[in-house]
Amino acid sequence: MSLVLDSAAQDLLFREARTVGSFSDEPVTEEQVQAIYDLVKYGPTAFNQTPLRITLVRSAEARERLVQHMAEGNKAKTAAAPLVAILSADNEFHEELPHLLPHFPQAKDVFFAERPVREQSALLNTALQAAYFIVGVRAAGLAAGPMTGADFAGLQKEFLDDDHTPLMVVNIGKPSDEPAAFGRAPRLEFDQVVTTV
Amino acid sequence: MSLVLDSAAQDLLFREARTVGSFSDEPVTEEQVQAIYDLVKYGPTAFNQTPLRITLVRSAEARERLVQHMAEGNKAKTAAAPLVAILSADNEFHEELPHLLPHFPQAKDVFFAERPVREQSALLNTALQAAYFIVGVRAAGLAAGPMTGADFAGLQKEFLDDDHTPLMVVNIGKPSDEPAAFGRAPRLEFDQVVTTV
Repeated sequence: MSLVLDSAAQDLLFREARTVGSFSDEPVTEEQVQAIYDLVKYGPTAFNQTPLRITLVRSAEARERLVQHMAEGNKAKTAAAPLVAILSADNEFHEELPHLLPHFPQAKDVFFAERPVREQSALLNTALQAAYFIVGVRAAGLAAGPMTGADFAGLQKEFLDDDHTPLMVVNIGKPSDEPAAFGRAPRLEFDQVVTTV
Repeated sequence: MSLVLDSAAQDLLFREARTVGSFSDEPVTEEQVQAIYDLVKYGPTAFNQTPLRITLVRSAEARERLVQHMAEGNKAKTAAAPLVAILSADNEFHEELPHLLPHFPQAKDVFFAERPVREQSALLNTALQAAYFIVGVRAAGLAAGPMTGADFAGLQKEFLDDDHTPLMVVNIGKPSDEPAAFGRAPRLEFDQVVTTV
């Protein structure tokens, strides 16, 4: 075996984990979300910029507003999930850099003075953190249902502001006992993905 | 404890793992890269599009060409790392969708007929897979040194083609015994990142 990670952890995070659309009624607690964040906050980002911001949609009123901005095929599962999180990029992340990067606080001005540069960097690094977050949800024994089928401009106006760009909406909960609608989809073979030069 | 993942795995993947710039001389084997891919290929992407492509830069000649396109501060560590991978987005990923998404093969034409739509989707989903890849490198007991400081247009011309957009270069290897140059940088507090509505 070339991996050091134990096989139970491999299964929990990747091999057995599945994207699900239907969940049990069990709530996702604040403690669980805090434990997930306290783990995945360590995932690496460029200049430790950590631009991910998370909006937990907990109230019935907010959930209703959220569902209206989801694509038709995502409305029912978003309405029913125990918890839904909007993941967004903070395009003003550079304001935190003097604190986040103590050995190079001038990165804020040297690299990130321009908004378009920040937006591009925040997009990439928020996506990295979104993946760490999905892994973290699984680390808590929960299932994640990440979705990009949504009216993101509408979501931004409804829940965020001009400095925050939503990237993804994630349903979170214990999977229901119903079998998955489809078998595990195929993946590309190593040789289709990897080239050596 | 709110996490199901055992604490050794938490440490290996997040808590103890660090981005490193200096590695031991031990090579990274083909078997290790295959084991990493065979784990992280299961990470979720939109419509199972899995647009990540990986170029392993193994030969001395290719390494030299790569180093020339890296930012000044990244040249020495890229030259010295046991293995370097260029991670890129395949903007023509939709060609594989009929195979990758057997329950909805028409996604290729319904959602991804337009190149700009594919480029935007491939960017986000390749970034997700880049994060899974970094987690996978750590799962193999190795350290990753992800870098975005590079002339990506030059890299694309040198190693890829018009359909593949490079996103990140990752140094990979066993960390050297030298202590990290800096202590673990701070992270944002839960309340700075998470809002509940």
